[in-house]
Amino acid sequence: MGGDYAPSAPVAGALLALSELDTEHRVQLIGREAVLREQVRAHLQGDHAALADHQSRLDIIDASDVIDMSDKPAAVIRGKPNSSMHVGLKLQVEGKSDAFVSAGNTGAQMAVSTVVLRLHHEVPRPAIATVFPTARQPIVVVDSGANVDCSASELVQFARLGAAYAESVLGRTNACVGLLSIGEEPEKGNAVVKEAHQLLATSGLNFQGNIEGRDLPKGESDRGQFDVVVCDGFVGNVVLKFYEAVAPMMIGLLKKEGGDDKLIAKAFGHLDYSAYGGAPLLGVNGISIIAHGKSSARALKNAVKVAAHAAAKKLDAHISERLGESTRTGVKA
Amino acid sequence: MGGDYAPSAPVAGALLALSELDTEHRVQLIGREAVLREQVRAHLQGDHAALADHQSRLDIIDASDVIDMSDKPAAVIRGKPNSSMHVGLKLQVEGKSDAFVSAGNTGAQMAVSTVVLRLHHEVPRPAIATVFPTARQPIVVVDSGANVDCSASELVQFARLGAAYAESVLGRTNACVGLLSIGEEPEKGNAVVKEAHQLLATSGLNFQGNIEGRDLPKGESDRGQFDVVVCDGFVGNVVLKFYEAVAPMMIGLLKKEGGDDKLIAKAFGHLDYSAYGGAPLLGVNGISIIAHGKSSARALKNAVKVAAHAAAKKLDAHISERLGESTRTGVKA
Repeated sequence: MGGDYAPSAPVAGALLALSELDTEHRVQLIGREAVLREQVRAHLQGDHAALADHQSRLDIIDASDVIDMSDKPAAVIRGKPNSSMHVGLKLQVEGKSDAFVSAGNTGAQMAVSTVVLRLHHEVPRPAIATVFPTARQPIVVVDSGANVDCSASELVQFARLGAAYAESVLGRTNACVGLLSIGEEPEKGNAVVKEAHQLLATSGLNFQGNIEGRDLPKGESDRGQFDVVVCDGFVGNVVLKFYEAVAPMMIGLLKKEGGDDKLIAKAFGHLDYSAYGGAPLLGVNGISIIAHGKSSARALKNAVKVAAHAAAKKLDAHISERLGESTRTGVKA
Repeated sequence: MGGDYAPSAPVAGALLALSELDTEHRVQLIGREAVLREQVRAHLQGDHAALADHQSRLDIIDASDVIDMSDKPAAVIRGKPNSSMHVGLKLQVEGKSDAFVSAGNTGAQMAVSTVVLRLHHEVPRPAIATVFPTARQPIVVVDSGANVDCSASELVQFARLGAAYAESVLGRTNACVGLLSIGEEPEKGNAVVKEAHQLLATSGLNFQGNIEGRDLPKGESDRGQFDVVVCDGFVGNVVLKFYEAVAPMMIGLLKKEGGDDKLIAKAFGHLDYSAYGGAPLLGVNGISIIAHGKSSARALKNAVKVAAHAAAKKLDAHISERLGESTRTGVKA
């Protein structure tokens, strides 16, 4: 029921995902049952073969409460116990689903995921990881908006969570972690970042050192490629939103001067966020994927596929393992 | 003597500036005299008319100490009292120059400017303002790297300094200030930003409220255009370096797919940093312009022109006036 184009885009995205995923996968649509049934019917109208195939792998599960974009997380927890988020995440706790995806209210999704799935041992708050397209391969930026005032040990934890995600979902080997700062030397940065640098250096992680804003679009620094970028959620969110807006701005300038659509698509196609399918909420016991509020059907299809992939690759077990390293190395995170 | 392409680029930039500025302007080249004389000779070789014209408005002033990029600011203050920065800034205090430009060690320039020019009353530390090109008109981002851990009242001060710069140098009327945050509502942001929002609302400044990362490349939010963006120097520096790298990355992708050079120049020409000529160090009594270490002769020419313009528009008096408002409105800055 959530996101700027709901319920149409989530329903269409789920149907597209079913047609692309192996037939062993099922999708549950959670929300107001009558609305969802009508949407499914509308999207599959006339295509009887597809209808029969998809319906056999599609469950519609009723959830009476709808979360608005303006609802405060605490009010959702108290006042909307039958929201699609509560209902969907409870199915995961009960072993009736493997992953959850929503394009709805991000704050509510964080709060309900935390309450229903609960957090990994030693994780005080979940973090949002975002996959950033770069000139090379995509990178994972953690945190990109969940935690605005962070301690150094929280930044180390983000590094462990991000490394587990890069390895499980993006297939990286011994993920390389960079710490976002304002100079490559360890003594550059604000107080928290300087402390985090010292902790990361002895964390057992594959730590590259500080990286700078200029290294982000390249996906590499002078010391080579990195897979994970660690920063607090204030900086991460500013940079993420800035990045999301720079590419369209530049494409707009090109088009104004008569730039060719095909050239633009070829050059910048891989910078399109909808290809990366949503940002995982890391630190919870389970899989909760936050899709952009403006997600199209295609973006939501990709978010469902990322969720299925994360479940298949046992992201959650990998995270437990990575968090366990903090005990072994003595660097608390 | 400073910058990646010194001494050639600064000397060439100074000569270019002389040829474009009104004849009432003089330029002082400060550094090792023999080196500078040789450079001037090399750049003007064969052009006797230009040589005569330029030499009459060019002073070469000897400074025996050279600051390296690796020199720590404190060591420069103690150990290199005859650096080109000391000598050049002292001329300003003595009334023998109106503005100072360098592409050298930024930390050293901040430290020497603070010691030699001294700070405005109530300003504890200077801030760096950077002019950001946008899809609309350029905006001023303060602080872009001088102050990494800031209090809310320091952010208000950055707003006053940035507004004075936007009005004096960019010609804006009653400059509109936005506070960089992660949501437009006053309650969004980290602890310092939330407090700064409240202070800015009663500061007497033309405060638009919070702006987000996505508003930066557009130069406007849903509430209209803004002239000044306030943030701490950590966030500002990350975003600045990111921006500097995104455009070349995208241009590289376009060229790889056969994008036409003329189209690229037409569409993105105004995003070129070298057109904006350096970042003023605000809060000192006087004018000290920090040019990018990688400044070309053209970038340094523009930095000299910005310095001349700032002096002509009495930036320093305007800043005193803006800082005086903090007493009148009761919001300390």
